[in-house]
Amino acid sequence: MSDLRRDPIGGRWVIVDTDHPNKPEDFEYDPHSLRGGTCPFCYGNEAMTPPEIEAIRDPDTRPNTSGWQVRVVPNKFPALQIEGELDRRGIGIYDMSNGVGAHEVLIETPYHGKDICDLLNSEIENFISMYCRRALDLIKDKRFKYILVFKNFGAAAGASLEHPHTQIVALPMVPKNVMEEIKGAHNYFEYRERCIFCDMIRQEMQEKERIILENKHFLAFCPFVSRFPFEIWIIPKKHNSYFCHMPAEEIPSLAVILKDTIARLKNIFPNLCYNFIIHSSPINGDGGIEGYHWHIEFMPKLTRVAGFEWGSGFYLVSTPPELAATYLRDK
Amino acid sequence: MSDLRRDPIGGRWVIVDTDHPNKPEDFEYDPHSLRGGTCPFCYGNEAMTPPEIEAIRDPDTRPNTSGWQVRVVPNKFPALQIEGELDRRGIGIYDMSNGVGAHEVLIETPYHGKDICDLLNSEIENFISMYCRRALDLIKDKRFKYILVFKNFGAAAGASLEHPHTQIVALPMVPKNVMEEIKGAHNYFEYRERCIFCDMIRQEMQEKERIILENKHFLAFCPFVSRFPFEIWIIPKKHNSYFCHMPAEEIPSLAVILKDTIARLKNIFPNLCYNFIIHSSPINGDGGIEGYHWHIEFMPKLTRVAGFEWGSGFYLVSTPPELAATYLRDK
Repeated sequence: MSDLRRDPIGGRWVIVDTDHPNKPEDFEYDPHSLRGGTCPFCYGNEAMTPPEIEAIRDPDTRPNTSGWQVRVVPNKFPALQIEGELDRRGIGIYDMSNGVGAHEVLIETPYHGKDICDLLNSEIENFISMYCRRALDLIKDKRFKYILVFKNFGAAAGASLEHPHTQIVALPMVPKNVMEEIKGAHNYFEYRERCIFCDMIRQEMQEKERIILENKHFLAFCPFVSRFPFEIWIIPKKHNSYFCHMPAEEIPSLAVILKDTIARLKNIFPNLCYNFIIHSSPINGDGGIEGYHWHIEFMPKLTRVAGFEWGSGFYLVSTPPELAATYLRDK
Repeated sequence: MSDLRRDPIGGRWVIVDTDHPNKPEDFEYDPHSLRGGTCPFCYGNEAMTPPEIEAIRDPDTRPNTSGWQVRVVPNKFPALQIEGELDRRGIGIYDMSNGVGAHEVLIETPYHGKDICDLLNSEIENFISMYCRRALDLIKDKRFKYILVFKNFGAAAGASLEHPHTQIVALPMVPKNVMEEIKGAHNYFEYRERCIFCDMIRQEMQEKERIILENKHFLAFCPFVSRFPFEIWIIPKKHNSYFCHMPAEEIPSLAVILKDTIARLKNIFPNLCYNFIIHSSPINGDGGIEGYHWHIEFMPKLTRVAGFEWGSGFYLVSTPPELAATYLRDK
């Protein structure tokens, strides 16, 4: 018999196949297949992107030339545009608005064919600190209510370019998914006067069976209510609502655990495509609350979301997180 | 500049690219690639499935032999199992339950390589009436709170078998997605004493620009707040909360519009994979309300859901529904 599990934050149910769980070799996942041609994110091709917003680069180099370690540029095909005021209006029963926001691309490294697990710790620390710098800069614009940081790696995960990059989006409203998570955490906080994520960390560290890795500041585990097989959360042990307020001493710990987590996954699933998303509190007064705890949700692309999930919001998880954690611990 | 559009039912926002919209030839969508071997859904292989639950078959044939037109069998790998009582319990901060439910497969036709647009109208009417019969039967089981009917067509849409089939799932709780839709519709109804879907039909028929097809009983249109390019809704013009209460005289109309809609889509996108989902009111007293209006949501698999959508619940729609409807009307 399968388990039904309920997400204590958003209230979502998932169905976990504990009877006939999928082992790693049972997945048919996509190998890469990405846009070819000259890579706009490689050294020497800086003119192919819009002018850089910010970079970590050798002191004797000029903007938009080689010599950078991390480079942030506007997305050439932005989902949202930086100019203008938000203008909400109705059309009959429908509501709409113009698409104001920011859409940036952070190029994590000059090396084209690398994944995070192939980089030096110091390189990873560099781009993580740049995540924070960009968020802190975008927050100054009071039109923005949420900063979304996410990475698509590989074609099956929706990436169009191979060169390792992360996207940073500033949104003019708090997305529904985020609002639900915030509200769920807030309700728990009101009731128990404790952060639900802190309680989750405590329970996971006690039960141990879903933990993959742990270091001084971070925990990596397969969540009890995983929506996808081999889903992983990376969470700071110390309560903190905003990732961009991460203390500087935590960054090396995050770099190590992120690198090691991805290395373990790719040891099991070579050429894996994945998404990760930083979940953080809304900004500029629209819903930022006590009881929210920032974290990274890591989603390997091993299965396809189909009619069942679209129709019900129930997720079918063919590998229980307890089993996934065993594989990931042993690798 | 892109549009932001807000779903008046669930409150979800989507971003519609009205500036640089994708035309049909801009999509790279997957061709089929499915499990090979002997097909358990073809004539002569009836013993490869669990024993049939119900079928439309020639009067002189026995169950589990050839001679059927539509056949319903239990899913060989069910997400939920029919036996047992629902047993909800907590584990620390988590909630769980055993996986009680029904998971059936409806084989739409004996012909292996066909899509709905290749069938006779009478064949489509047969399987639609079987959708209703199965739902009416499952509703009798008071443990079930929601009947989900959905179709995955093609590997990219999550199908594992090529032979045309639909899945019918009876769930022991109302899924969160459905509950939100129901609540959204209910709030509108409380405020205006009108069904939001009836208002939507009225507005769409007035504005015309998103309508693809219309017949006596049904309307096919690209919704204003599409989440996917070329998303299509098929909705009965007359208010009705439950698809399984569809009047018999509406079934031929639905068969015609479903067939024609899929034919038009495949004219533009040969070998298209897709999902469709019947959205209907919850059953057995758990949330069924005034102001909900059943309909089919049709989702062509042209794009991949990536970090942006997962992280925010915002969807990026690269072809505005007004443009998609133009292509579909002209084919």
